[in-house]
Amino acid sequence: MATRTRLSRLGLDTGKKARLHRILHQHGLRNGTALFLPYDQGFEHGPRDFFANPDSSDPRYIVKLGVEGGFNGIVLQIGLAEKFYWDYAGEIPLVLKLNGKTDIPPDNAALSPVHASVADAVRLGADAVGYTLYVGTPVQEKDFAQYRQVRADAQELGMPLIVWAYPRGWAVAAKGGNDSFYAVDYAARVASELGADVVKVNFPHPEKSEGVAEQYVGTDVSAQQAIDAVVRSANRTLVLVSGGTRAGDEVMLEKARESMEAGAAGLIFGRNVWQREHDESLRFVASLREILAKYDVAP
Amino acid sequence: MATRTRLSRLGLDTGKKARLHRILHQHGLRNGTALFLPYDQGFEHGPRDFFANPDSSDPRYIVKLGVEGGFNGIVLQIGLAEKFYWDYAGEIPLVLKLNGKTDIPPDNAALSPVHASVADAVRLGADAVGYTLYVGTPVQEKDFAQYRQVRADAQELGMPLIVWAYPRGWAVAAKGGNDSFYAVDYAARVASELGADVVKVNFPHPEKSEGVAEQYVGTDVSAQQAIDAVVRSANRTLVLVSGGTRAGDEVMLEKARESMEAGAAGLIFGRNVWQREHDESLRFVASLREILAKYDVAP
Amino acid sequence: MATRTRLSRLGLDTGKKARLHRILHQHGLRNGTALFLPYDQGFEHGPRDFFANPDSSDPRYIVKLGVEGGFNGIVLQIGLAEKFYWDYAGEIPLVLKLNGKTDIPPDNAALSPVHASVADAVRLGADAVGYTLYVGTPVQEKDFAQYRQVRADAQELGMPLIVWAYPRGWAVAAKGGNDSFYAVDYAARVASELGADVVKVNFPHPEKSEGVAEQYVGTDVSAQQAIDAVVRSANRTLVLVSGGTRAGDEVMLEKARESMEAGAAGLIFGRNVWQREHDESLRFVASLREILAKYDVAP
Amino acid sequence: MATRTRLSRLGLDTGKKARLHRILHQHGLRNGTALFLPYDQGFEHGPRDFFANPDSSDPRYIVKLGVEGGFNGIVLQIGLAEKFYWDYAGEIPLVLKLNGKTDIPPDNAALSPVHASVADAVRLGADAVGYTLYVGTPVQEKDFAQYRQVRADAQELGMPLIVWAYPRGWAVAAKGGNDSFYAVDYAARVASELGADVVKVNFPHPEKSEGVAEQYVGTDVSAQQAIDAVVRSANRTLVLVSGGTRAGDEVMLEKARESMEAGAAGLIFGRNVWQREHDESLRFVASLREILAKYDVAP
Amino acid sequence: MATRTRLSRLGLDTGKKARLHRILHQHGLRNGTALFLPYDQGFEHGPRDFFANPDSSDPRYIVKLGVEGGFNGIVLQIGLAEKFYWDYAGEIPLVLKLNGKTDIPPDNAALSPVHASVADAVRLGADAVGYTLYVGTPVQEKDFAQYRQVRADAQELGMPLIVWAYPRGWAVAAKGGNDSFYAVDYAARVASELGADVVKVNFPHPEKSEGVAEQYVGTDVSAQQAIDAVVRSANRTLVLVSGGTRAGDEVMLEKARESMEAGAAGLIFGRNVWQREHDESLRFVASLREILAKYDVAP
Repeated sequence: MATRTRLSRLGLDTGKKARLHRILHQHGLRNGTALFLPYDQGFEHGPRDFFANPDSSDPRYIVKLGVEGGFNGIVLQIGLAEKFYWDYAGEIPLVLKLNGKTDIPPDNAALSPVHASVADAVRLGADAVGYTLYVGTPVQEKDFAQYRQVRADAQELGMPLIVWAYPRGWAVAAKGGNDSFYAVDYAARVASELGADVVKVNFPHPEKSEGVAEQYVGTDVSAQQAIDAVVRSANRTLVLVSGGTRAGDEVMLEKARESMEAGAAGLIFGRNVWQREHDESLRFVASLREILAKYDVAP
Repeated sequence: MATRTRLSRLGLDTGKKARLHRILHQHGLRNGTALFLPYDQGFEHGPRDFFANPDSSDPRYIVKLGVEGGFNGIVLQIGLAEKFYWDYAGEIPLVLKLNGKTDIPPDNAALSPVHASVADAVRLGADAVGYTLYVGTPVQEKDFAQYRQVRADAQELGMPLIVWAYPRGWAVAAKGGNDSFYAVDYAARVASELGADVVKVNFPHPEKSEGVAEQYVGTDVSAQQAIDAVVRSANRTLVLVSGGTRAGDEVMLEKARESMEAGAAGLIFGRNVWQREHDESLRFVASLREILAKYDVAP
Repeated sequence: MATRTRLSRLGLDTGKKARLHRILHQHGLRNGTALFLPYDQGFEHGPRDFFANPDSSDPRYIVKLGVEGGFNGIVLQIGLAEKFYWDYAGEIPLVLKLNGKTDIPPDNAALSPVHASVADAVRLGADAVGYTLYVGTPVQEKDFAQYRQVRADAQELGMPLIVWAYPRGWAVAAKGGNDSFYAVDYAARVASELGADVVKVNFPHPEKSEGVAEQYVGTDVSAQQAIDAVVRSANRTLVLVSGGTRAGDEVMLEKARESMEAGAAGLIFGRNVWQREHDESLRFVASLREILAKYDVAP
Repeated sequence: MATRTRLSRLGLDTGKKARLHRILHQHGLRNGTALFLPYDQGFEHGPRDFFANPDSSDPRYIVKLGVEGGFNGIVLQIGLAEKFYWDYAGEIPLVLKLNGKTDIPPDNAALSPVHASVADAVRLGADAVGYTLYVGTPVQEKDFAQYRQVRADAQELGMPLIVWAYPRGWAVAAKGGNDSFYAVDYAARVASELGADVVKVNFPHPEKSEGVAEQYVGTDVSAQQAIDAVVRSANRTLVLVSGGTRAGDEVMLEKARESMEAGAAGLIFGRNVWQREHDESLRFVASLREILAKYDVAP
Repeated sequence: MATRTRLSRLGLDTGKKARLHRILHQHGLRNGTALFLPYDQGFEHGPRDFFANPDSSDPRYIVKLGVEGGFNGIVLQIGLAEKFYWDYAGEIPLVLKLNGKTDIPPDNAALSPVHASVADAVRLGADAVGYTLYVGTPVQEKDFAQYRQVRADAQELGMPLIVWAYPRGWAVAAKGGNDSFYAVDYAARVASELGADVVKVNFPHPEKSEGVAEQYVGTDVSAQQAIDAVVRSANRTLVLVSGGTRAGDEVMLEKARESMEAGAAGLIFGRNVWQREHDESLRFVASLREILAKYDVAP
């Protein structure tokens, strides 16, 4: 099992450390691990994501679920944060997602525009901000320019910065795709090099190797070894592993276990949680918490 | 019949609440519903929209019609607001439309540039600002960037923000078109996620399903069910349903009834109102008011 | 004959009203009409425009001609304003043209970049600023963005804003061309909606109807009816009709008469004035003044 | 022989006049004419320009040559100005060239990015700034936007502005090329209209008339008549004629004579000066000074 | 052997001189030469660069190696500088690399976006900043615009500026490629003209002459003559020669010797150092130091 870096070794300024401490040690399991509930799919994919469980269309239902499920934080875009978080302010940490896009135009030159500022996050009492960085996109200079401002503002205001490090764009598609081991590994590293405090990655797929960098080809890497490497590439950046589209529970729990074993700080599961009935959601969350409970890390 | 959310549950800051209260409870029917008169078609489509009723070319005629018809607000671009609103200032709330474009170049990468600021709205005594967001356009990052500044300024100055959430662009055209249920539903959600206080939508067409997201295909959704869903997707964002191009009165009144039944806050009808003689306009407005009168909502 | 709106009904702030009053009632015929002398053709078309009368190449000659001819204002770009207006400062109002372009690259995506600020106009003692807005161009968002800043600065500094409202670009070419009735009518309206105090239009051509909006097709509109409509579309925006390329004197004087009859505030004639010998220029100007003298309007 | 305009008639503010007086009347021949030594070719063309005389690669050698040759100014980019001018500060006026580009990518949409500010020029004790404006390029709006800032800063800081007015880009190539009489004449006018204090032009070629504006075709214009016209088009903007690529001495001296006869303020010769041995350089400079000595102009 | 310019002759302001003195005379061999350890390859190429020596993936390992090897500085991107430099702050100078990009999209219009500011470098106690300038790229105006801000900030804050002057883009590829003598020579000059204090170049290849400027063709230039010329083109800009991809030790040491003989200030070797076991790395570094020890230069 990989060792976990304590908050005090990450080179964090006071404000960031205080807020991450609140998220990791004063919410959820309070053991230094994290379980986040992301809820920006209505924007990223549209209301179609709510058809499986119509209740999930209502932000109030989701925020309440976050509280009931004992999550370490809920992730919202500015509009829903303003309209719904006031009801539960303080009961669950808020991660204000600062950028996002619809999935209507194609993704080959993906860019996720910024919709809110770090100052908005401070105003709303958030404990972290989220930013989607599309690693490898042909318009990376626009993305990096946006990101740079967010990073600088977060540094100035002591706000932890969670980077959704997502390989994307036609050049990525030609080099193994969005979730190849090569691409996910690279994305984790980019987030670390560019100052993310926390990085959200998709689970890496070592079998997707067509077109990837030669060093990633022809080696017989297991899923565990791949996620191990990704966490290593992130070095002192805390890693959250994403659930992605809904899949079978056993598969998801296995991924969760492998992620934590690799040294990840936690999980960020949305559709796998709320695309089912309320009580089933809570049962699935309980299984995730059971896993996280095994990976205590001191502050 | 859907329940209507009261202003006090929307998470609004003081200034926005004061101004929305003025619009909804101190003008028009003063019962919490709204009827708006938009008058930016001379810019969006050109003077051709005034050929059906030449008097309608004169902004003074229209502002006066707004007062006579008991509208909750009139929507003007900066130039007409400066030249004509002073005559009737205070008699009818002003919604300053902040962006707009001509219809001369094609719409496949539609973007509606900003022409005035929220500060201009404050200077002119407006009670709300309007912004057209083209959801799904390939140049969405430019649109979102403009919108973000408007949203931030509106937040800072306590000015209610009405978003014209219009699906547009070649990618939308390829996925069911501008007024498919899928597209309108998505647009309503985007406005809510991005911080609109009020969203203006077109009436959704569930029968337009070629190319839309699979969840919207093959279900037998009625017009009422579609508009119900759109209002639900907007959650705590007040919904205004648009009249669009002029159509038969009975069709329009039926849409109005269905919209209000779905939980919309009101209607925004322009060409259907003023593309006819003065007295006919007022008669049609009276029918709309009759509908709205049935949907009282407390402040 | 159309009624003329008095300055006091235009909703103008103090500074704009003071400066327009100076131009319209303290210069030229002092009767509320206006005759402007534009001199930016050396930039817009190059020195070739001066070959017909080599003296016209010298800005000093032109400014003097403006004084001698009793014009209400002379229009210059920043460079010539700085180098030549000091000699005659105060003797004739200066309209500082803020944007412009060469005619070397093609016009299909025309944009006229800004070269000077409203503050420059204040510094040089100008009484108005001019801005060319290319209505209908595919790059309209850049144009509108520039224009917006100019409009805001002019509002702040009390400087009257004259908009050269010129239909332009490939989409306009495909819908009847730059001077169709449809396009000129639309352009006049756009200027009014976007806050121009004065709009400069080309004389509309109702016979150019191929590709225009259907409302403009198949009606038998006279030249007088067309310019009447254009002035109506401009509503409370003062209209100046442009001379354009040099044509026969009788044709030009007839256009001038029709324009004034339609309710225009005045004329703006350059090449038709100075592409001939000095004394001939003054004689032609005298004919124009004769026409304007018939259209007194009180302040 | 054309009359020369005195500094006091140019409408200059105090700082610009003081600095131009220093350049024209306190350096070089001190007779109101000017001879400049440009040295940005290492950037514009690369070190290949130094192969003819390897010593010329060393900026120190060139600055010293400028002092020895009695030039009115030396033109440097920011890097060389910072590293080499301190050695000779005050002994020869510095013209800080504010923009420039490599010649590696093709020129069809030429743009010369800004590398230093007018404030940098003030800090380094420069007496003028230089800006390359590519007249007629399809990206003219970017160029004009850059230029506008430079012009405004120069106006604010009283710094004379020398514009390298160079026709460039594919549209120019299709209309007679970079140094046709038509293009050079237009470029000189543009610089004057846009506020240059001094304009640097290439010698015009009336024989290049394929594709130029019709007014320039079929007339039998001599070299002298062409440069006369160009100087006239520049009106109160001082004209410097450029040497360009190295050519035979007699040809260059003849061009110099014709330029001065036309009313140019002076010459700007680089490669023709330093692409030869040190003493030969000084001998050629002496010939140029001999010409300039005949064209005294009072301050 | 070329003479080396002393710091006091470079025209440096106080802060830059103090920091360069610290790097060159108070670290490493303390003899005025420099050996830098760059570590941004995880961002520029991805984690694949660490496969040859898995330990090298850990930034802590590398910073420690920099200290142990007696380097004059370590080069890090903002994220790793924040997370890892605090541990060793002051023990080895930090060069904060301000821009960078992934190698996923192709390089034909390469641009390296800025990720951190000079103020970040000050905050972290860095002694220099690094900027990659892609000389000859078709998007050079964006690159130059970024660079200009960095240069101005570095000037204001007294921070030495090291420019990675890298020929890149399709136009370079068509003119001999990234490391032809022509391209490297041009790049060194550009850095000097634009105000770099130090320039990092790749070793020039005179044999790559297809498509280069004619002056570089057909001459029989040795490797030593080529690097001599490059250093001369950089004039008073200190030259660092880059190691590039890992090659045989003897080849690398020979390049190092030739570079120092040509007058370079030092070397910047990354992969050649750390793509091997720890002790082998130190042995190779010792060989490099042996070479540098022969080129003392007084402050």
